[in-house]
Amino acid sequence: MTRYDLVIKGGTVVTEGGPRLCDIAITGETIAAIGTDLNGAEEVDATGLTVLPGGVDSHCHIAQVEPGMGHGAESMVTGTSAALAGGTTSIISFVSQHAGEEITDVLAETLARGETALADYTFHQIISDPTDKVVLEDIPRVVAAGLRSLKVFLTYEDAHLTDRAFLRVLAAAHREGCMVTVHCENYDAIGWMTEQLLAEGFTEPKYHAWSRPEVIEREATYRTICLAELVDTPIQIFHVSCHAVAEEIERAQKRGLKVWGETCPQYLVLSATDMDRPGREGAKYMCSPAPRDASDVEDFWDDIRRGVIDVISSDHSAYFFEGPENSKETAGANADFSRIPNGLPGVETRMPLVFSEGVSKGRIDLETFARVTATNPARIFGLYPRKGAIAIGADADIVLWDADRRVTITNDLLHHAVDYTPYEGMEVTGWPVATYLRGTLAMKDGEICAEPGQGRFLKRGTYEMATPRGITPNGFEAAKIAPRPAARAAE
Amino acid sequence: MTRYDLVIKGGTVVTEGGPRLCDIAITGETIAAIGTDLNGAEEVDATGLTVLPGGVDSHCHIAQVEPGMGHGAESMVTGTSAALAGGTTSIISFVSQHAGEEITDVLAETLARGETALADYTFHQIISDPTDKVVLEDIPRVVAAGLRSLKVFLTYEDAHLTDRAFLRVLAAAHREGCMVTVHCENYDAIGWMTEQLLAEGFTEPKYHAWSRPEVIEREATYRTICLAELVDTPIQIFHVSCHAVAEEIERAQKRGLKVWGETCPQYLVLSATDMDRPGREGAKYMCSPAPRDASDVEDFWDDIRRGVIDVISSDHSAYFFEGPENSKETAGANADFSRIPNGLPGVETRMPLVFSEGVSKGRIDLETFARVTATNPARIFGLYPRKGAIAIGADADIVLWDADRRVTITNDLLHHAVDYTPYEGMEVTGWPVATYLRGTLAMKDGEICAEPGQGRFLKRGTYEMATPRGITPNGFEAAKIAPRPAARAAE
Amino acid sequence: MTRYDLVIKGGTVVTEGGPRLCDIAITGETIAAIGTDLNGAEEVDATGLTVLPGGVDSHCHIAQVEPGMGHGAESMVTGTSAALAGGTTSIISFVSQHAGEEITDVLAETLARGETALADYTFHQIISDPTDKVVLEDIPRVVAAGLRSLKVFLTYEDAHLTDRAFLRVLAAAHREGCMVTVHCENYDAIGWMTEQLLAEGFTEPKYHAWSRPEVIEREATYRTICLAELVDTPIQIFHVSCHAVAEEIERAQKRGLKVWGETCPQYLVLSATDMDRPGREGAKYMCSPAPRDASDVEDFWDDIRRGVIDVISSDHSAYFFEGPENSKETAGANADFSRIPNGLPGVETRMPLVFSEGVSKGRIDLETFARVTATNPARIFGLYPRKGAIAIGADADIVLWDADRRVTITNDLLHHAVDYTPYEGMEVTGWPVATYLRGTLAMKDGEICAEPGQGRFLKRGTYEMATPRGITPNGFEAAKIAPRPAARAAE
Amino acid sequence: MTRYDLVIKGGTVVTEGGPRLCDIAITGETIAAIGTDLNGAEEVDATGLTVLPGGVDSHCHIAQVEPGMGHGAESMVTGTSAALAGGTTSIISFVSQHAGEEITDVLAETLARGETALADYTFHQIISDPTDKVVLEDIPRVVAAGLRSLKVFLTYEDAHLTDRAFLRVLAAAHREGCMVTVHCENYDAIGWMTEQLLAEGFTEPKYHAWSRPEVIEREATYRTICLAELVDTPIQIFHVSCHAVAEEIERAQKRGLKVWGETCPQYLVLSATDMDRPGREGAKYMCSPAPRDASDVEDFWDDIRRGVIDVISSDHSAYFFEGPENSKETAGANADFSRIPNGLPGVETRMPLVFSEGVSKGRIDLETFARVTATNPARIFGLYPRKGAIAIGADADIVLWDADRRVTITNDLLHHAVDYTPYEGMEVTGWPVATYLRGTLAMKDGEICAEPGQGRFLKRGTYEMATPRGITPNGFEAAKIAPRPAARAAE
Repeated sequence: MTRYDLVIKGGTVVTEGGPRLCDIAITGETIAAIGTDLNGAEEVDATGLTVLPGGVDSHCHIAQVEPGMGHGAESMVTGTSAALAGGTTSIISFVSQHAGEEITDVLAETLARGETALADYTFHQIISDPTDKVVLEDIPRVVAAGLRSLKVFLTYEDAHLTDRAFLRVLAAAHREGCMVTVHCENYDAIGWMTEQLLAEGFTEPKYHAWSRPEVIEREATYRTICLAELVDTPIQIFHVSCHAVAEEIERAQKRGLKVWGETCPQYLVLSATDMDRPGREGAKYMCSPAPRDASDVEDFWDDIRRGVIDVISSDHSAYFFEGPENSKETAGANADFSRIPNGLPGVETRMPLVFSEGVSKGRIDLETFARVTATNPARIFGLYPRKGAIAIGADADIVLWDADRRVTITNDLLHHAVDYTPYEGMEVTGWPVATYLRGTLAMKDGEICAEPGQGRFLKRGTYEMATPRGITPNGFEAAKIAPRPAARAAE
Repeated sequence: MTRYDLVIKGGTVVTEGGPRLCDIAITGETIAAIGTDLNGAEEVDATGLTVLPGGVDSHCHIAQVEPGMGHGAESMVTGTSAALAGGTTSIISFVSQHAGEEITDVLAETLARGETALADYTFHQIISDPTDKVVLEDIPRVVAAGLRSLKVFLTYEDAHLTDRAFLRVLAAAHREGCMVTVHCENYDAIGWMTEQLLAEGFTEPKYHAWSRPEVIEREATYRTICLAELVDTPIQIFHVSCHAVAEEIERAQKRGLKVWGETCPQYLVLSATDMDRPGREGAKYMCSPAPRDASDVEDFWDDIRRGVIDVISSDHSAYFFEGPENSKETAGANADFSRIPNGLPGVETRMPLVFSEGVSKGRIDLETFARVTATNPARIFGLYPRKGAIAIGADADIVLWDADRRVTITNDLLHHAVDYTPYEGMEVTGWPVATYLRGTLAMKDGEICAEPGQGRFLKRGTYEMATPRGITPNGFEAAKIAPRPAARAAE
Repeated sequence: MTRYDLVIKGGTVVTEGGPRLCDIAITGETIAAIGTDLNGAEEVDATGLTVLPGGVDSHCHIAQVEPGMGHGAESMVTGTSAALAGGTTSIISFVSQHAGEEITDVLAETLARGETALADYTFHQIISDPTDKVVLEDIPRVVAAGLRSLKVFLTYEDAHLTDRAFLRVLAAAHREGCMVTVHCENYDAIGWMTEQLLAEGFTEPKYHAWSRPEVIEREATYRTICLAELVDTPIQIFHVSCHAVAEEIERAQKRGLKVWGETCPQYLVLSATDMDRPGREGAKYMCSPAPRDASDVEDFWDDIRRGVIDVISSDHSAYFFEGPENSKETAGANADFSRIPNGLPGVETRMPLVFSEGVSKGRIDLETFARVTATNPARIFGLYPRKGAIAIGADADIVLWDADRRVTITNDLLHHAVDYTPYEGMEVTGWPVATYLRGTLAMKDGEICAEPGQGRFLKRGTYEMATPRGITPNGFEAAKIAPRPAARAAE
Repeated sequence: MTRYDLVIKGGTVVTEGGPRLCDIAITGETIAAIGTDLNGAEEVDATGLTVLPGGVDSHCHIAQVEPGMGHGAESMVTGTSAALAGGTTSIISFVSQHAGEEITDVLAETLARGETALADYTFHQIISDPTDKVVLEDIPRVVAAGLRSLKVFLTYEDAHLTDRAFLRVLAAAHREGCMVTVHCENYDAIGWMTEQLLAEGFTEPKYHAWSRPEVIEREATYRTICLAELVDTPIQIFHVSCHAVAEEIERAQKRGLKVWGETCPQYLVLSATDMDRPGREGAKYMCSPAPRDASDVEDFWDDIRRGVIDVISSDHSAYFFEGPENSKETAGANADFSRIPNGLPGVETRMPLVFSEGVSKGRIDLETFARVTATNPARIFGLYPRKGAIAIGADADIVLWDADRRVTITNDLLHHAVDYTPYEGMEVTGWPVATYLRGTLAMKDGEICAEPGQGRFLKRGTYEMATPRGITPNGFEAAKIAPRPAARAAE
């Protein structure tokens, strides 16, 4: 009987069964045992701390190859540093499809960028033009490379799909056994609303919210669910903004469809009135869908508690506020709301915000926190049980969390590339004090200890989560995309 | 670093996070570690087996002090032997309140009977006459003795409460911080229906079902939920028979009420037509509520998957089929359905039936199986985290399960006291091959290894389960009965 | 071609198809024609007025034989005078069942009292003790006498039925082909709540509302629906107080059950805070169920619009505020809320309040007004098509209404027997200026022109309204109680 | 006092308040009085007959200007003859928008075609290309010409609108105060499904149903409701095929949106299996949406009873089965299902089928029959109170109906232009025996008595029906499109 390499002792460990006072033993990169009185070559005292699984941020735009887009502001180095600082050890970013380029070329370039990562990483493949070649050759190759989820947009000028193109993507996903994630807003309706508003001279940031009301998101969500039902493909609705949209997701789940919902801290903490702040400040809060009425938020937390919304990701999108090119301020000074880049940075503040608003304020318990920030995204995107939970055999991705620590968020504290945070000045209760990536200390007291290149590319399996209503999938060819619970232990 | 006393090696361990291939290390009576490559003084090879938490049967009539009632047929020795043989390591039986006797006397006698138990045990306190003394003195004493749940009947001649008496019990439970479990059927309506049927000469066993249709159970369930809402007391609806009743429970849960639902294998496996078997055979399937239409059962499994129904217990009630006194056959030969003792034996067949119908047939996964047969009843009734899950610090109550083994159920196989099983001749897939109680082998290959007296009385805490909608309780004096997640790790 | 006896010319006639500018021709006591350019021996100019069917108040306590109860304050003469003054031409009062008396004797005495009526009248038969004789002999006799509806109470000391007694009444109603109307509040729960409140010294009028919260009414409503479903008897839930209760009624209607809902102006105009007025004033607003939160009222109007609530009656209960005996003030001065008579006078203010709050404020249209105040109660209680609508062959019960007239309600204006109105000082828009009973002017400009004895007893048929979901009834022996649309024209 | 021109005596007249035994007096073209003992210059004995308002078929393709389309097979003469023979006195057909032509030219041509009509008529304006000129100039002109409803398609190659074009139409309708009617199926999804089916060689008529399953219609319906909610425009969903689609409409109605639903006899009488009849017979039953599962139909009738579905029109589309050009058979012989003209003839069989399946089989009562076949379409499309009901001042459009007559439908019986009926050989109970158009006999015993040119163009007002939840509309500029109940009597 050998001693373990590292033992984290005496913390309140948030296992999948809830919090326990116990030790975690690590051998190499993985968790070897959970128990009491475990001993190791190195021992870390976690007394008084909460021990959480390293976060999995399944939706963040980091090192995305987008010529001329602000997304590019966040490199793998800065983005994954920010992730580690905020308690997140795995991220899922995006491979784009650009007009006139081969998907496989963009994939290669994106993978190359990943080599500088400090945290573990993988990608969703965006499909914006599902030609025959894309559907029949490229998607199978992408899946073979370990990316088992596609992303489509139902809005945005160059990215939105027609319903027919969307069906081609869904059918390809069905064939290849992967998920489809969807940005659900109605392109045509936003375009028409924007046209009406600009024609009347309504140009300030707050009209961003007017141009894309809740009903426009709800419509696209319902449509997505119907099309996915038609071809029996599992989907995740990205960045659900409010309870009314979640209601449609719940209806689908109760009918047995494989539909999951994601939200982000901005929809729990910000509201439409933030975009009405004086001057150009409102631009700092612009994202799509837009934040909604604050009065809705308790019903929305209830959707999280009941599992209608399974995942809270960041949708980290790093645009500078000030800057020479494509920044929010620059664009805003000269232009209307429709030309201001929208998207918010948030990979580093995600877990503290959800902990503070959720756990510290008594809205969710610790297990639910771990589920929505780590376990569920890992399951849905084929990273589980390697990632997402403190469990035997899993990667030793662990965060030591001081549940009582009060921190006032300022951009100075943060490690991302951009010059502002929408949460400036907000006080949170609960903060990560150390992050371990595969058994190695990667962050301590806000200092990044990991090195570029330490992060690893994660090849993914099929989704591992039971359907919302159980484990029996419906539809034809179901075997190919069905959850495979028996396989879990064997992996 | 010392060696563990016992290590169960290489099984598929069903942790709260799902199944893992790993070892379990036991020191003394509790689980010391879960991991890989653990070593112990004794090692058991579980390769190829599923390793489950010992079952918690939170509703079984064993060694109940009931003069003249068939319930008494099952002694602590036979009842807990049957439990162990079926993979169940903890049972909750009942302390009765008899007319003319002190509750505390019955409690003492019941506790004394428990001393012969082979498995761990505790009791619900039945309240059938909530006098001032009972409410103000006895219930506090019962709770102080470690029984933190009351049971009331809304039907049965000598047991049913008026709504006012029921409110007195609910209010006392609120004050003392304990749950109330309820048999929900409308006494008056059953009485009236029975009167009509007997007046027309409808006496055969199948008319038992006619005398108490679904609507009668649904009414009493709704009423119970309303009265509990009035005084803000957590309740469990016992033996829910069908989806229509579960729907009312779900509505209450979505409103944030602390309402849980229990069902039993008989409502998943049997149906009303079984009571129409030829001769007196129908009496073997009589229980209350009555089994319903088989066509309803898939929707009902869905309620289990979605957590509307949290617990599957046995409602083990051991009446002889043949016999000199108060048996089903004897009563039946001379009398109408209303005089046949109703209730079914099932403590031993509970887990195999749920495993076979649920897991083997693909309706639920292993985690859900463990939850409804062990974890949830332990949480709801204050036994968690000591009981109900394979987790660090928990009692080492463990079942080794052969998921592929096919067994044809016959009464000869079983260890209970009575002369029949309603599941005679039914083939199940999946069977327990060994049961450990607090680290000690208690059953192996159908042979009971434990001795009478080895079982221990379980003093219970308050319920430890989050409310269905989250952790924030509603109502006044909530602190007293609120779930206390922070306390879990500390216990 | 002969001239008609009377023609009302040029008003906006509210027919069942909506308002039309046309004339109404009357021959004898009935409507002979509706058309344009009709001529009569007498002609009345209704230009600028709204012409409505005479109101049917299907729930008012007038000339009820109740020794020692304040209900008796309202004689047939005063009560029906007040009805006519308020635009109501038909009332349904009650025959009581007293301990120790024959129902048939009370019926005879009640019928005798009716002989002084100025408006047409009939009765519901209250059943508070359904003995074999009552069920097998008295109810058939009552029905044969033309009373085709029973009334039961689920609360009140001397009146409430057990569920078993209630089932006996429901079954008798099923056999005899009549409706059952129900006061739905849980007796036991009110008793327990009252006990708690009085024990703490909470005695003021406002605690009346605390003693019987919404959930207590909702429970009894659901229970009533279940028991009526069990024996397939059509029911009307009396005086529904709020939207939450209406929701349960709507669920039942959507399942095809024959369940109708009634409310009263007090639940649309008053709220629980009225009972908290200074001094003993609060007693003036005490009725059961108690008025609820004002914030609920728009949803409740929506239930009226959608037909979930079919009838708005007055539940006229005339207790003096001041007085030597059994008045609200006298009782209140010396006693707690539980001893203050509860019930409000309202037969005269019913139609003006509903018109003003409903039609004048744009919540309902004229057809809906006529439906809920006249047509629906007539249909449900077997008075249609003789009563309740301006239609060929119907009794010429007609109200000329000045939709623009503003009137401030004071008790001086009113014709009822008691010394207060809960609506003192309230301004309404819309007021009846003339009432015709069977073709004869009965009220003009607030002056009663009818004489005692002019009112007639109305023998009733079975209910004539389609079930909420259609015309096909469910259940056995349905033919006996089913609606008979084919019979309408023939009658 | 003068005698009336015509009195229809002694029938069971279906007024808006239900059936009455009475007479109807007609002066000139309108109803002058309803009553008893009315006398006229001419008197018709209707004893034993049911007297119904002349049907309003608000959706039929008659004399539609469509170069090369089979729709053109039905001329105004044949189409309105068929209408009168089937009890329908008013039809709403369509004005098309053709590429390269002025709407106003097509309107002029269509109006000219109308001059040969035997029944009264009006049109919906189809918009398939909402250019600025169309939206800003043509639609106002069309409305000024008396057409107050637009029609859009969400599917069909040359007709379907994008969501943005659809919003332009909805906004124009909002501004001009008119309704929009919508064919709700998802063009892209049907195209994709058709592509898949044809690629696999599935070409027979039955695959028409496979190519456009229920979910595709449900999606488009939900989308339509959302877009109409965005701009606050009242809509009618055309030809709802099943209960699942109606559920979405009901949800919208309960939220207070101005959404109405229409269905057609083919969705109540036919089912998807009819398209699987041997040979090319299946083509006779092809329409869009496709008929669904027969098992759904009772729930769908319930939607009609409860008013979720307000209108039953014919969607009369007259394609020859055999014929040289564009017939179902010719197209079918050489081509796949996607090239067979779809649409069914039905203007003449509409009322008999609904009467027989609805009234004779006890599913709906006579008032509901009159409402869905006449009153509701007249209200929704601005023809009420002139059309749609037997009421004072209304046009004397009246049908004498023999409710007991059994007729076997054959194409020989019918007056339409085409060579088949999908209802060949079906026996119905109830048949129209005489039709009066504005007081003149237009059909008797199957013989057409009217002459071409006797029909009149109907200029329409705004919709006159209360919103589903009441009379208060929501949204901005609501006054313009709000229902105006006060105006009814004045018209």
